[in-house]
Amino acid sequence: MKKVGVAILGLGVVGGGTYKILTEHREFYQKTQNVDITVEAVLELNRERALALGCPEEIIASNIYEVVSNPAVDIIVEVIGGVGVAREFVLDALNAGKSVVTSNKELFCKYSHELERAAKRNNAGIFFEASCVGGVPIIRTLLDGLQANHITSMMGIVNGTTNYILTKMTSEGTSYEEALKEAQRLGYAEANPAADVEGFDSTYKLSILSSLAFHTKVPYTKVYREGITKITAADIAAASELGYVIKLLAIGKQTAQGIEVRVHPAYVKKSHPLASVNDSFNAVYITGDAVDDVMLYGRGAGALPTGSAIVSDVIYAATHKEVKYSTFKNTAEAEKGVKFVSNFESAYYLRMSVIDKAGVLAKITSVFAKYNISIEEMIQKNADGDVTPLIFITHSTHELSIRKAIEKLKEYEEIANVDAVIRVVS
Amino acid sequence: MKKVGVAILGLGVVGGGTYKILTEHREFYQKTQNVDITVEAVLELNRERALALGCPEEIIASNIYEVVSNPAVDIIVEVIGGVGVAREFVLDALNAGKSVVTSNKELFCKYSHELERAAKRNNAGIFFEASCVGGVPIIRTLLDGLQANHITSMMGIVNGTTNYILTKMTSEGTSYEEALKEAQRLGYAEANPAADVEGFDSTYKLSILSSLAFHTKVPYTKVYREGITKITAADIAAASELGYVIKLLAIGKQTAQGIEVRVHPAYVKKSHPLASVNDSFNAVYITGDAVDDVMLYGRGAGALPTGSAIVSDVIYAATHKEVKYSTFKNTAEAEKGVKFVSNFESAYYLRMSVIDKAGVLAKITSVFAKYNISIEEMIQKNADGDVTPLIFITHSTHELSIRKAIEKLKEYEEIANVDAVIRVVS
Repeated sequence: MKKVGVAILGLGVVGGGTYKILTEHREFYQKTQNVDITVEAVLELNRERALALGCPEEIIASNIYEVVSNPAVDIIVEVIGGVGVAREFVLDALNAGKSVVTSNKELFCKYSHELERAAKRNNAGIFFEASCVGGVPIIRTLLDGLQANHITSMMGIVNGTTNYILTKMTSEGTSYEEALKEAQRLGYAEANPAADVEGFDSTYKLSILSSLAFHTKVPYTKVYREGITKITAADIAAASELGYVIKLLAIGKQTAQGIEVRVHPAYVKKSHPLASVNDSFNAVYITGDAVDDVMLYGRGAGALPTGSAIVSDVIYAATHKEVKYSTFKNTAEAEKGVKFVSNFESAYYLRMSVIDKAGVLAKITSVFAKYNISIEEMIQKNADGDVTPLIFITHSTHELSIRKAIEKLKEYEEIANVDAVIRVVS
Repeated sequence: MKKVGVAILGLGVVGGGTYKILTEHREFYQKTQNVDITVEAVLELNRERALALGCPEEIIASNIYEVVSNPAVDIIVEVIGGVGVAREFVLDALNAGKSVVTSNKELFCKYSHELERAAKRNNAGIFFEASCVGGVPIIRTLLDGLQANHITSMMGIVNGTTNYILTKMTSEGTSYEEALKEAQRLGYAEANPAADVEGFDSTYKLSILSSLAFHTKVPYTKVYREGITKITAADIAAASELGYVIKLLAIGKQTAQGIEVRVHPAYVKKSHPLASVNDSFNAVYITGDAVDDVMLYGRGAGALPTGSAIVSDVIYAATHKEVKYSTFKNTAEAEKGVKFVSNFESAYYLRMSVIDKAGVLAKITSVFAKYNISIEEMIQKNADGDVTPLIFITHSTHELSIRKAIEKLKEYEEIANVDAVIRVVS
C-alpha cells in the first residue's frame, strides 16, 4: 500500500478539523483508497493547542525548515491564512518539491501565478478545493465534472456570514445591525466583519471560481464589489412583498461582450433554487452550454466541512500523481485581449422617497424614458409624514443607464432621496 | 497535443447529443484541455440518422468489429441501452483494450463485475458518470470530491419522469393518470412507463450510487422498491396541508445495523432542499461525517445534459491515464458479512377510511399502542357519506411495526380501508 506523509501548518479551527479527520479515518482510507496517510509533522506556535488535539510531541515541529526538509512529509497542508507567512511557507514547501493543499482563498487569489510557477518548476502539485465554498466540491466539479461545457454563467452564495445575516433579517425582520451582532455572538462573524460584509471574501472566491470557469485569469481587482451594509429592513420587506429574497451573490458571466464579474446584494425570485439557500449554507448555480443548470449546495465553512475538502485534496494528490491542477495561465494579470464588461445588463429594484406633489410621478417616468428604462412593477406606499416611499422594479437595462437616471432624479427637489438600488436576477 | 479518437455506439438522443458536443467543441477542448478529440467511428443501424447528424460517410461503421479493430479509436462510448448487444459490444471494446464510457445504468448496475474484470484484464478503463442523474457530476463527486467522508446517508430524486408527474399533480391537483398522460405527450414518459413509474430506473441508479458511497457492492436486488402508481390527488393534497410534498426518493443509509436501500414515494418537509426540486430536475442530498450535508442539483436526462456527462468522462479518460475507475469489488453479489436492513426506521403517513361509530378511534389508537407507534399528528376530515377519512402522521417507528399494525387494523369492520401508507422523511 502506498504510504503518504502529511504536514499541517496551523492548527486553528480548520487545521484541527483536518488533523482529526486524517487521524480518525486512517484505517478507512487504507481500506477504501488503498493509501496509508499519516500526519508526520505539525507547525503550530501554540504548543498547548497541538498537545490538546492529541498530537504526539515528536511531530510538533519548531520551524518551517524542519517540516519541508522532513523526508517523511510528501504533502503540506497550509491553513494559516493571510498572505504573510502563509505565502512564504507555501513557497518553501513547493521549492522543496512537496505538494501543497491550501484553504487560503486570499493567497491563492492574489498569488496563484507565483505559486503555480513554483509548483511547476519543482514538479509539485498545488490543490485548493478548500479555498472556495468549504466542503462543497466546486473546484473539482469545474475542473473534472463540467469541463465539457462552455460555462456561460455562475451565481453563487459563497459567504456564510452574510447569508446568515440576510436570512436572519428576512425571517425575523431584524435590522442589519442586530443581525450582525447575533452573527458575532455565534462566532459566524469576526469582531471586524469587513472582510465578509463588505464582500471581499466573496470577491476572492469569485476570482478563483471564474478563472476556472472561463479558462483565463480573472484578477480580483476586476470584480465589481458591493457589500450588504446598506441593506435595510425596508428593502427586505419590499423583497418579500414582491416575491423575492435578498442574497449576496457572486456573479460571473461570459458574454459576447466579455467577462462580467460582480459581487453585490441581489433580489432573487423566491422560486429560484438559490432563494432557499439559508443560514450559513452556501451554493453555486452554474449554467453550461451542454449541461444547462446545475447547483451545488452545502456548508461553506466550519472545521469538518472545510477539513473534508482539504483531506479530499490530500487523497486526490496522493492517488492522481500526474494531475497537478496548475490550470490557470501563469499570470497575475488578465490576459491580453480578454475584455471585462462593467456596463452589465440587469433589472433593478429602486426605492425612493418623494414629496407628494402633483406631477412627481410624471417627472420620474420621463427620466426613466430618457434612459430607456422600462418599469415592470411599481408600488406606492403610504406617506410617512410629507414623504411617500415609491418602489420600482425595472425591466432589464444597463448599469450605466440606471446610474445616470439616478443622478438626474437627484436634481429634482421633489425627490427627497433615492434610498436603495439593488440589482434583480431572474 | 495528445490526440484521442472516439467511437460512438448508437446515435439516438444521447448519442446524437454526444456527437454534437464533441464535434462543436473540438477547438475548445484543444485550447482548454490540451487534447484533440475526434470522432473516428459511429455505429448506427439507421444510416440516415447518422448522415442527418452530419457524420461523414467514412466514419459510419458496418459492425462492431470494424470499430474495435480501428487503431484510431481509443475510447468507445456506448449509448445503446439495455443489456443485450450493449453488453456484448462493451465487452468487445474492453477486450480490444479500448476504454469505455457508458450511460447505461441497467448494464452497469447488473454487470459491473463482469465489465470491471474485463477492463482490468485488458488495462482499459470503464467510466459511467452518465449512468446516474444526467449532467450532474454525482459519480465524480462521490469518488473524488467526498471521498474523505464516511457517507452515512444519501437521498435522491433520480428519475425525471416521476418527478415531473408528481410536480404536476402537486401544482395542478391533477390525478396520477392525467399527469402521466401529459408526461407521455411531452416525451418525458415512455408508452410503457413501468421502468420509470414502478421505480426500476431509480433502483438501478441507487444500486450504483450506494455501491460507491458505501464502498461495497450493493446489488439492485437488495433495494426495496415501490413506485408512484398508487399516489392519489388526496395524498398530494394532504401532504400540502401538513407542510410536505411527495417525492419519489432513492434512499441509501449506512447504519450500525447495516446498509438500508429503498426506493419509494415519501413525504418531504417543504423546508427541505429536496422539496423544491421540481419538474424533470433531479438532485441528490448526501450526508457525510465530515462534510455534513451537500446537495447536487441539475438535469437528470436529455441529449445535451447527459452528453455533458459522457464527454466529461471522455476528457477524464483522456487526461487521467492512471485512473480506471474500477472501484467496486469484482463481484455481482453483496460481500460476505455486509448486512442489509429491511426493517428500517421511518415516520409514516397513513390515510384510512373508517365507519363513524363510537369507539373507532380508541380501537385504532390501541392498535398503534400495541405496536409502539406514537402519533405526531392526526386529522379527521368531513365524512364522505358513511365513511370518514382519517389521516395520521406517526413518529419514527419500524417498517415491520407499521405492517403488523395495518394487518391488525384491517381486521376491524369499522375500518373500511387503509387507503395509503407513505413514508415520511425529515
